[in-house]
Amino acid sequence: MGHRDQGHAQRITELVDAARRQHKTTPAHWGQNEYLRLSDGYRRLARGTAVFGSSIVAGYPGIGRILALRQGLQEHFRERFWVEEKVNGYNVRIFRLQQQLVALTRGGFYCPFTTDRIPDLLDVSLFERHPDLIVCAEVAGPGQPYLESAPSFVAEDVQLFVFDLMRFNRLGFLPQGECYDIVERFALSAVRRYGAFTTDDSQQIQQILLQLNDEQREGLVFKEDSERNRRAKYVTSNSSIADIRVTAAGIVDLPPEFFTNRILRLVLFLQEQGLRHSAELSQRLGDAFLDGLAEAIEQYSEQKKVAHRYHCRFREQHNALAMIQHMDSVGSRQVQLTWQDLRFEDGYWVLEFDKLYSGMTGLLANLLSGGMVYD
Amino acid sequence: MGHRDQGHAQRITELVDAARRQHKTTPAHWGQNEYLRLSDGYRRLARGTAVFGSSIVAGYPGIGRILALRQGLQEHFRERFWVEEKVNGYNVRIFRLQQQLVALTRGGFYCPFTTDRIPDLLDVSLFERHPDLIVCAEVAGPGQPYLESAPSFVAEDVQLFVFDLMRFNRLGFLPQGECYDIVERFALSAVRRYGAFTTDDSQQIQQILLQLNDEQREGLVFKEDSERNRRAKYVTSNSSIADIRVTAAGIVDLPPEFFTNRILRLVLFLQEQGLRHSAELSQRLGDAFLDGLAEAIEQYSEQKKVAHRYHCRFREQHNALAMIQHMDSVGSRQVQLTWQDLRFEDGYWVLEFDKLYSGMTGLLANLLSGGMVYD
Repeated sequence: MGHRDQGHAQRITELVDAARRQHKTTPAHWGQNEYLRLSDGYRRLARGTAVFGSSIVAGYPGIGRILALRQGLQEHFRERFWVEEKVNGYNVRIFRLQQQLVALTRGGFYCPFTTDRIPDLLDVSLFERHPDLIVCAEVAGPGQPYLESAPSFVAEDVQLFVFDLMRFNRLGFLPQGECYDIVERFALSAVRRYGAFTTDDSQQIQQILLQLNDEQREGLVFKEDSERNRRAKYVTSNSSIADIRVTAAGIVDLPPEFFTNRILRLVLFLQEQGLRHSAELSQRLGDAFLDGLAEAIEQYSEQKKVAHRYHCRFREQHNALAMIQHMDSVGSRQVQLTWQDLRFEDGYWVLEFDKLYSGMTGLLANLLSGGMVYD
Repeated sequence: MGHRDQGHAQRITELVDAARRQHKTTPAHWGQNEYLRLSDGYRRLARGTAVFGSSIVAGYPGIGRILALRQGLQEHFRERFWVEEKVNGYNVRIFRLQQQLVALTRGGFYCPFTTDRIPDLLDVSLFERHPDLIVCAEVAGPGQPYLESAPSFVAEDVQLFVFDLMRFNRLGFLPQGECYDIVERFALSAVRRYGAFTTDDSQQIQQILLQLNDEQREGLVFKEDSERNRRAKYVTSNSSIADIRVTAAGIVDLPPEFFTNRILRLVLFLQEQGLRHSAELSQRLGDAFLDGLAEAIEQYSEQKKVAHRYHCRFREQHNALAMIQHMDSVGSRQVQLTWQDLRFEDGYWVLEFDKLYSGMTGLLANLLSGGMVYD
């Protein structure tokens, strides 16, 4: 994972052909058009790779997480590496296809929401000058439709944070220098960049992380400036607490590892920084669980359900309707999404929908009516 | 579950025969003797039912947990019910067989430790007068070999807490009155008994629970005084925090639900009592995780392993050796138990062994050497 490819179109085409022959591709829809996506990784093709006829959009490869900073950097990086902020949002790939702008989610699904908002998110003249570019970015903010949480520095709606560029029919990313040039030239909203470091700079990187932690920001991504383009990510303890706080109501719906992993990350972050946990940190961790759950119980008492309410702005009504459809087809497998409202407000179509915590709703219904559990 | 049987020997014998025919029984050993045990429940036979030739020892049936006290009592109890303290230990059944005293664990395994200590735990003349009795009890204390935790009111070694009596070849328990009589007569160390209550008394029961919570005690068991002998249990919030504290080092070894269930119980306990969580409670919950894990990391740095050390006293050396064997045969499936020391001290053979948190040990070895995880 994370190795850079020389980018021969032939290479990726062969891989896609092999994946097709082995039935690794699934049909997906983009408006009236059908395309293929990989619902799992296949050799060097990442999950979410999408095939639009002869135009292949490589999947965005997963980035491994290190939980011990110093040792992790030493273990994985040989050359200097770029350090960038990790932003808490959802991963998209944005590109132009047949004169239309399209955004795909990590899984390779067409995203009506992001697609609708592309003109708000970036300077689309980019695709006039560079029609073969694929913008890899995080969309973050309280107005996005996928996550419960948003970074505090996006006060409303959504914002784009570009971190990579790819081209059609290629594996791997544009070299960081080229990427940064294009980001500058088109004034793309990008992730914070801290420059190039080596494993000798771990003190300095720790300082950056302490600062990010104080600002309640998520963490860093490291990208080796080399052919193999090794990558890693590392998150702050406050990001772990924030995650727990916003998802505590889903404590029985999410995999329990979601919570225990974050507690472990948090402790290792403190150890790394040479900190003992303070009474204040313990209290915030405790509060994250207890406030979140108390709210869930309160919501259940009032509404007989526990759900997270989303508010998303669309430019076009038909995209909001497509999002509802998308939710029905994609969402219903794992989570129940129920449409609540669609209204025109301040120049946008505002879609409101609920993500039901069905596990928590059912559990509270059972327990609060006196149900028994055998555990 | 929990229904009282009229106790016809024929009935349980038929059930055991059927279980045998359907290969639901597993051979087990008691010294040189073989017997059969049920590793899963079978119809009305609980898991842990044990068959010694023509002497059947019924399994101790699971007791359902309610997480909302008032509603739970109302839902499940029609008649008055006995209220007893729930003690945090391991469940045993103690009886006399072929002139020997024997103790079985919940799962129906012969327990060399408990068996060895029976004369310290109760007045064995009980079995002279009542040779057909089976004493159902919790063994609790820092000197027991199964759990990480012990109630604060058992300062050292172990103590017995009797809560039920059964007879050979019977399903169900002796009526509570008879049980209490025998407990008094033989001065058996029993669980605290609060008397009989009805669902109208939930205020009073809440008061008892608040008191138990303040004293860092575990909770209550409710037993309906009726033919069907319905039962339920309910635990305090402090007991949930204590559980998390002593097992945080096992956060990746134990099922993650272990932790998330306890957080949920804790919040529901507070809601029930009409309490908002205090800053102090949040801090204790946070500390439970963070202190426990910081200790685990510290232990790993020093010893390259994360383990819980047990110290158990035996009267007889051969029982300590049998315990080591028992650990090898039973323990090794799920957890690694490694014998550390056996010495004679103050009239007892003291066995020391470690329960390895192999998941945590492996994870820290990986992470602290810079390992990457994909999550």
